[in-house]
Amino acid sequence: MSDLHSALLATIRNVPDFPKKGIVFKDITPILSDPHLSKRVSEAFRDHWQGHQLDGVAGIESRGFIFGMQLAQHLELPFIPIRKKGKLPFHTISQSYNLEYGTAELEIHTDAIKAGQRILIHDDLLATGGTANATASLIRKLDGEVAGFSFLVELSFLAGASDLNSDNIHSLIKY
Amino acid sequence: MSDLHSALLATIRNVPDFPKKGIVFKDITPILSDPHLSKRVSEAFRDHWQGHQLDGVAGIESRGFIFGMQLAQHLELPFIPIRKKGKLPFHTISQSYNLEYGTAELEIHTDAIKAGQRILIHDDLLATGGTANATASLIRKLDGEVAGFSFLVELSFLAGASDLNSDNIHSLIKY
Repeated sequence: MSDLHSALLATIRNVPDFPKKGIVFKDITPILSDPHLSKRVSEAFRDHWQGHQLDGVAGIESRGFIFGMQLAQHLELPFIPIRKKGKLPFHTISQSYNLEYGTAELEIHTDAIKAGQRILIHDDLLATGGTANATASLIRKLDGEVAGFSFLVELSFLAGASDLNSDNIHSLIKY
Repeated sequence: MSDLHSALLATIRNVPDFPKKGIVFKDITPILSDPHLSKRVSEAFRDHWQGHQLDGVAGIESRGFIFGMQLAQHLELPFIPIRKKGKLPFHTISQSYNLEYGTAELEIHTDAIKAGQRILIHDDLLATGGTANATASLIRKLDGEVAGFSFLVELSFLAGASDLNSDNIHSLIKY
């Protein structure tokens, strides 16, 4: 276990019964409070993905914007914001995904990706994989290629990774 | 007019009638598509604020997360996410603000700021100043000091700056 792994385990805060009874939420805000640790997180993402053939980083609203933009900047790549329905102002396509009750939709600008571009998808958390999979669908609808998935935290017991159908899934820390 | 200013003017996209008829939305996503320009934006924020006495950068959900986290990292400061009601998992306080119809609420974690700390508030856009002012109230409720405001785009004709009661308001570009 690396030093960074131990530091993250010691820093991420368990918040019981959030967002509802029975769920233990992994709160990453104590990482953000520590600029040195945040820097190490950002560098670990960069170290993992540099050398991969990538054309852009798609970050999922809103916590995926925090380290996603930094990762895009480290790799000198475009940052592509994936947002909730109705938030992106230009021409968009959308993809719905299932929530526990009902559905939600994510959107991407149609000019965000050119055909054949290899896009890395980033979010802070991989749980059941619903939003990550919806983002992958958006990229494929624009004839982009999903080059991989990057997460800060992966909740392995929810097995979201198996639904992503990718050989390139990287998570800094798994529970 | 600086080169960066001209580049931003040429890159920011006007989207008419978004989010509703009669409003011309300033779309910053073309900046994010250009990693070199994004880097210059990030460095311009850093150059302006380094040397100021600051203890943290508060970024307003969700577009304020994009350059706000980078600014915090450049200045080696904690990043404090300001989020919509119900999104932050730990103990929070909230502040409501007026929308055109009705009100909305922003929240901050109560442990995000210590008394007396000087906090810079960052968002991508200053329009009427409602969310920036609500964020200032949250910081003051926790006995923090508002050290200044940082925006990518300021819509000067909406006169939001005059409501912020601060001598330290910096916007990269004004319309």
